[in-house]
Amino acid sequence: MGIKVVIIGGGSSYTPELIEGFIKRYESLPVSEIILCDIESGTAKLAIITRLAERMIHRSGLPIRVSSTLNRRHALEGADFVSTQIRVGGLEARALDERIPLKHGFIGQETNGAGGIFKAFRTIPVLLELSKEMHELCPDAWLINFTNPAGIVTEALLKHGPHQNVIGVCNIPFNMRNSTAEVLHVDVKRVSIEFIGLNHFVFGRRVFVDGSDRTQEVMQRLMTKQLDFSPANIVSLGWSDAFLQAVNMLPNPYHQYYFQTTETLKKDLAAYNTNGTRAEIVQEVERTLFEAYQDEQLDEKPAELELRGGAYYSDAACSLMDSIYNNRGDVQTVNTLNRGAISDLPVDAVIEVNAVITKEGPLPITVGPLPLSVKGLIMQMKQMEELTIQAALSGSTKDAYLAFLMNPLIQDEKRAQPLLEEMLLAHAAWLPQFQSKEAQRT
Amino acid sequence: MGIKVVIIGGGSSYTPELIEGFIKRYESLPVSEIILCDIESGTAKLAIITRLAERMIHRSGLPIRVSSTLNRRHALEGADFVSTQIRVGGLEARALDERIPLKHGFIGQETNGAGGIFKAFRTIPVLLELSKEMHELCPDAWLINFTNPAGIVTEALLKHGPHQNVIGVCNIPFNMRNSTAEVLHVDVKRVSIEFIGLNHFVFGRRVFVDGSDRTQEVMQRLMTKQLDFSPANIVSLGWSDAFLQAVNMLPNPYHQYYFQTTETLKKDLAAYNTNGTRAEIVQEVERTLFEAYQDEQLDEKPAELELRGGAYYSDAACSLMDSIYNNRGDVQTVNTLNRGAISDLPVDAVIEVNAVITKEGPLPITVGPLPLSVKGLIMQMKQMEELTIQAALSGSTKDAYLAFLMNPLIQDEKRAQPLLEEMLLAHAAWLPQFQSKEAQRT
Amino acid sequence: MGIKVVIIGGGSSYTPELIEGFIKRYESLPVSEIILCDIESGTAKLAIITRLAERMIHRSGLPIRVSSTLNRRHALEGADFVSTQIRVGGLEARALDERIPLKHGFIGQETNGAGGIFKAFRTIPVLLELSKEMHELCPDAWLINFTNPAGIVTEALLKHGPHQNVIGVCNIPFNMRNSTAEVLHVDVKRVSIEFIGLNHFVFGRRVFVDGSDRTQEVMQRLMTKQLDFSPANIVSLGWSDAFLQAVNMLPNPYHQYYFQTTETLKKDLAAYNTNGTRAEIVQEVERTLFEAYQDEQLDEKPAELELRGGAYYSDAACSLMDSIYNNRGDVQTVNTLNRGAISDLPVDAVIEVNAVITKEGPLPITVGPLPLSVKGLIMQMKQMEELTIQAALSGSTKDAYLAFLMNPLIQDEKRAQPLLEEMLLAHAAWLPQFQSKEAQRT
Amino acid sequence: MGIKVVIIGGGSSYTPELIEGFIKRYESLPVSEIILCDIESGTAKLAIITRLAERMIHRSGLPIRVSSTLNRRHALEGADFVSTQIRVGGLEARALDERIPLKHGFIGQETNGAGGIFKAFRTIPVLLELSKEMHELCPDAWLINFTNPAGIVTEALLKHGPHQNVIGVCNIPFNMRNSTAEVLHVDVKRVSIEFIGLNHFVFGRRVFVDGSDRTQEVMQRLMTKQLDFSPANIVSLGWSDAFLQAVNMLPNPYHQYYFQTTETLKKDLAAYNTNGTRAEIVQEVERTLFEAYQDEQLDEKPAELELRGGAYYSDAACSLMDSIYNNRGDVQTVNTLNRGAISDLPVDAVIEVNAVITKEGPLPITVGPLPLSVKGLIMQMKQMEELTIQAALSGSTKDAYLAFLMNPLIQDEKRAQPLLEEMLLAHAAWLPQFQSKEAQRT
Repeated sequence: MGIKVVIIGGGSSYTPELIEGFIKRYESLPVSEIILCDIESGTAKLAIITRLAERMIHRSGLPIRVSSTLNRRHALEGADFVSTQIRVGGLEARALDERIPLKHGFIGQETNGAGGIFKAFRTIPVLLELSKEMHELCPDAWLINFTNPAGIVTEALLKHGPHQNVIGVCNIPFNMRNSTAEVLHVDVKRVSIEFIGLNHFVFGRRVFVDGSDRTQEVMQRLMTKQLDFSPANIVSLGWSDAFLQAVNMLPNPYHQYYFQTTETLKKDLAAYNTNGTRAEIVQEVERTLFEAYQDEQLDEKPAELELRGGAYYSDAACSLMDSIYNNRGDVQTVNTLNRGAISDLPVDAVIEVNAVITKEGPLPITVGPLPLSVKGLIMQMKQMEELTIQAALSGSTKDAYLAFLMNPLIQDEKRAQPLLEEMLLAHAAWLPQFQSKEAQRT
Repeated sequence: MGIKVVIIGGGSSYTPELIEGFIKRYESLPVSEIILCDIESGTAKLAIITRLAERMIHRSGLPIRVSSTLNRRHALEGADFVSTQIRVGGLEARALDERIPLKHGFIGQETNGAGGIFKAFRTIPVLLELSKEMHELCPDAWLINFTNPAGIVTEALLKHGPHQNVIGVCNIPFNMRNSTAEVLHVDVKRVSIEFIGLNHFVFGRRVFVDGSDRTQEVMQRLMTKQLDFSPANIVSLGWSDAFLQAVNMLPNPYHQYYFQTTETLKKDLAAYNTNGTRAEIVQEVERTLFEAYQDEQLDEKPAELELRGGAYYSDAACSLMDSIYNNRGDVQTVNTLNRGAISDLPVDAVIEVNAVITKEGPLPITVGPLPLSVKGLIMQMKQMEELTIQAALSGSTKDAYLAFLMNPLIQDEKRAQPLLEEMLLAHAAWLPQFQSKEAQRT
Repeated sequence: MGIKVVIIGGGSSYTPELIEGFIKRYESLPVSEIILCDIESGTAKLAIITRLAERMIHRSGLPIRVSSTLNRRHALEGADFVSTQIRVGGLEARALDERIPLKHGFIGQETNGAGGIFKAFRTIPVLLELSKEMHELCPDAWLINFTNPAGIVTEALLKHGPHQNVIGVCNIPFNMRNSTAEVLHVDVKRVSIEFIGLNHFVFGRRVFVDGSDRTQEVMQRLMTKQLDFSPANIVSLGWSDAFLQAVNMLPNPYHQYYFQTTETLKKDLAAYNTNGTRAEIVQEVERTLFEAYQDEQLDEKPAELELRGGAYYSDAACSLMDSIYNNRGDVQTVNTLNRGAISDLPVDAVIEVNAVITKEGPLPITVGPLPLSVKGLIMQMKQMEELTIQAALSGSTKDAYLAFLMNPLIQDEKRAQPLLEEMLLAHAAWLPQFQSKEAQRT
Repeated sequence: MGIKVVIIGGGSSYTPELIEGFIKRYESLPVSEIILCDIESGTAKLAIITRLAERMIHRSGLPIRVSSTLNRRHALEGADFVSTQIRVGGLEARALDERIPLKHGFIGQETNGAGGIFKAFRTIPVLLELSKEMHELCPDAWLINFTNPAGIVTEALLKHGPHQNVIGVCNIPFNMRNSTAEVLHVDVKRVSIEFIGLNHFVFGRRVFVDGSDRTQEVMQRLMTKQLDFSPANIVSLGWSDAFLQAVNMLPNPYHQYYFQTTETLKKDLAAYNTNGTRAEIVQEVERTLFEAYQDEQLDEKPAELELRGGAYYSDAACSLMDSIYNNRGDVQTVNTLNRGAISDLPVDAVIEVNAVITKEGPLPITVGPLPLSVKGLIMQMKQMEELTIQAALSGSTKDAYLAFLMNPLIQDEKRAQPLLEEMLLAHAAWLPQFQSKEAQRT
């Protein structure tokens, strides 16, 4: 009796990476069944991915059954792991998340600012449904949530969903650890970074190699630009020495939205006027990818997938499943309940933190009080996340307005309102919770 | 044996208002001695104010002795109340606080943003000296601190000074209550407003007339612009209905810097290009005032003083002294130690809050948790205040940089640095604590 | 249109005191209607009390209507104030609360230890019913709860009842202030005591006369036994100098159960063997009182009532109603939501604290962190209260056992169990919530 | 260059166990030098132990140098690990800690109650001296503190000592895990127990075998008395089913002092009257042991040592050193700074908790809020610990009285005072801090 894995959003272009991950780790993580699950509008893509997955597994010679379905309830029954990589509204919705804020003079980004808030609004109700189904159909299964904004979505699931075996995963800490290992010329297994904060607002407080503190050396590499954590999809502007010396922690690439706002906005507007939004670029990449995926000769993950931006997602997910399945007790960076690990944040908040991974899930390692240098902003971000979740559930435009107002990328009491109205209108099809409250807005 | 009052910064143009206050309240607050104390460079102004005060008291026929001195230690001995209205570096320093940020594209304001932080840097060490002297020379006296940024300065005094009888006062809550009473056509004594938050970041959560909740009515008046809390020195841009409805609390005039940043910056830049900074306007007003003050016929507070912007400061200060002296047990809004009144903020933070005023000082009325709508931003502001105090004491440019970085009006990791450097240089004469650390900056 | 007051448990022997209170305060608190409400088994007493109340009011010549009813819903409609002085199970139940623990070698007291826990078990469900009715029938009325254990009952009502206008009142702080005024030979109005802690576990941290600190003088009077706070129903054993000097706060009479446990238990056992329980003494007093009440000549509160032990209850209740009705803003000691006033305790805990009394209810004055000297025990007591409320609602014997185990007067893992079993059996008639769970106990 | 270990209190009868531990683990923990350090009055014992250690190492054939000294400063220079197993005042002082409380009718136990408080008073100043020396002479070394009361002593060192590389160790969690493994017939490496609470007041919340929850099975074994955690030195009375079911966690043997107080006191008094105190029994055991140790033929740890009561201490210490030295990242139960791991306790409290052991020390695994069932009592115990540390530093008899008053095993305001006085007198020679304050007591 092997492991049953369900991939929600199985038609995603990322799926081949996950399949590859399961094949590579088969010895320690013996997956016997993979079900790719998607929604009706994704039928064509799902078929392509399923075929590719079949070829990859066939090539591996492993006894893994792969199948696809549009029937989520059927797929979930008896699952051991469920991973989510959905995008409610597809890349069209993402394009709106990016384009509308830019038009109003705000940063347009799919996981931060107005765009991230709306992605949360669209995603949370859908995943809360999944939470209910899992609670009923596979109560012991672990939900590995990749869907962005991963921190907010995971907090919504843990606070409001019945299914509590949920872990949020982001590839950013994974990438930062890999890049650090590379620049220090050591095996990544010997590197550990103390991560503290929130998803897409996480800092690396200290870097250790074999348990010895190498933080200052890594800070130096950041100052001399020998090290840069920006992924493919974020153009880096670099950090000033003043910032790195004063904060004395590793920033993550998304911090540039908050600490280099004016410059980033300018750059994004320029890029938008030249190449359109990131969503539109990705749409192009996806077209190419799916073309490649249809090649009946292709039976491994194609190199082009790297361009897609989500490198290491599969590694992050598979090692998490592996450690849970084998009760490894190793340390990984996840989005999980705070419970006091960061003593300044609410116990029921979700944080991004190093955790010991056991069969019973992640046990966060205590961080203590936040460093004075960034405590205030992290607390504001958490507050904004809480307001976002509240609005996603209430469908109240007042709550949505407050989430906008408390977001450091918006925070303009007058300009927030037309931005909000335009986004509510543009995304109306994916936001039933806000429609039923039509009245309130008039 | 009457009450002895010492006015630190006695040569200020505001002093006549305080003198008037003492005269008006003589029956319940029998002041027998007023000492106006100032520094050498203020000798000329001090003489003018002392003469005017003498004439005012003479006219009143009351047995109040007034005198002036440059010897602060001598003045403090045996004092009952000490009020501070100093401006380290004078209006020239204020002009720098306003002008340099504008030049760098940031809001230039003397109590918020970079300017407010530097005012704190200049003021805190001077008032900590006063705290030590009071602890020695008049240990039971109450220090009524008007000096801005009043919240930050009061927190520095209570956390780091030996003298603990310190209360910070701001005229903003006083003004808001008066304006509210006016628009509701009721006597101000019947109005109470539940104030919550921080100095210059305070909200009025609920408005009561004779104990009955009239908040929604007042919110309506704000929406219809029948009510505006902006004082003479802040041009109001008005609030959007969306903001007022969602926050559902009374904003204070300084909130526009944080919630209307772009627009306010634009307006301030335009004003600056036309009329110069507010400091320069005030310098002009001061010239006129001191001319008027020298008129030997003048024996009352001149009407022009209203233009100066600090209306009701004297009322706020005198009613506080009166309630302490008479152990009144009435409720006033002050800056005092939190101690749990706002359960989200540190117990040793200074907050702006309603308090029962007794002979033993203010007893803050419990607020409870902050409303979700503004909690995050208030917590960030408090954090920024803590960093400001830390930098004011350490003289570390790293700490100063962090205070800038965490200020929502700056928060740009690259642009913060040249702004900080220019301000440190411009204010060097008033910032000895930063000079002794010259090395650290190179 | 005057004030309508409903007295739940109107047939209580205390009621004449309340009636007298309303008569005395008529000018500022114009009560126009009093409804005495009781349950069927109290019909006879209710009739006697109602007749006496009518005579008292008739004598006063005031236009107050008094009536009685067994129909609580009818009584509540349109009420302004509701006071509760019920005793579920009557003095018979109280006798069990006192007798059974003594038999098992534990202190038997109706508001502390096992007895207090069972009084809470019997009372909470009944008053939660009242809360629902008030929420429906008189949503703006204030519930003034006298019913012991007043702190626990009030917390249960505020945490689990729909009606939030609830204030708990105890005469202990009232008595302590009166006794202090007496020993200092000053009018009680000039005295204020800073009370901190929990009902029946409250300390007086500081004593002020006209705002000046007189704490040490009062501590001296306690040491020399010139002052003793014990009411008629608690025989005082006095406090050691070591205790008074180290704690340096005014203990309340109930503290002897916790700090003089062995001695008190011995004394109570001796008294029990001689005179029976306090309940039995009170039954005797009650018989005498009701005899006196039936005297058709009697038209004022009889002096014998003082012996009953609840002196000043009426004063405490009437001044609270008066301050609410008139929005007085004076300070009274009440049981109300913590909200941060004591920063060590949960924000939703009920504490006994000084509060500003307004038309909108009590605004607790911030206490800050608890003194290190007693913090731990206060936190344990609060925890025990929480467990008691949990058990009262769940009807789980495991929860009840935990409440016993965490009570410093029991805290014996083996002896707690037979005590609990005997009390559950003895009180079964008044504890329906525990009956429906019969199964769990086997 | 191997590892240098210093054993403070090297003349202790426990030392051979540590020596054996180093020999057994040499491969992964290559100790090259062991210095046994003691005070002058321990010279004779130190010589015996050093000789035995030499023989043991000689037999092992390992290149470990062992030596002894009375010069602590000399010993510490360049140390990697320092372990402390001192007993200030020796077994004579322990006898007083046990005998005096019994005489006054209180439990006499060397780590709990009055005895434990006095052991802390004697130990803390001595170990704070050590902390200063380590900070100067071996700043990177780890102090592994065994000295009881280990939690209180470790908190004192971390709060008030300059040297922060301190870990407190107790063999109780170690024993509980071993006994659990035994009764479940599984290898101890497969067992993990979630420990929460304070030293000698720790609970095992959940038991896992290979990551699967087996808690209920272990609770059953406790109920059927197949499992008992009591060590040799504590006679077990067993736990009631009611207690085990309601608390639903594994109690530790010391809990019987708090939850079976009456019975334990009776038992201890009986034992005392028959065999004297535990100290006296141990004195006898020690005599036998040291006799055995002198046998020049003996070159291994003698079996009699097991009787001494501290089984597994050496295992606990050696595996801690091993994991630090090798940066193992495994989970061990230690006494370390809370930092939020238990969200109800102060961040700077020391707790007993599972921690990931790295080269940089223990990283506590987050526990979250304490279970409602025992939260209150744990908070009171922590409070009592804080008062004990405060008194140990201040030498104030008022503080010492408060520590007694807040200890659940004393808590009697009158009887605490003569007990305290007698103990202060009896231990005067080892309590210089209390002597210099002679005045305060009169």
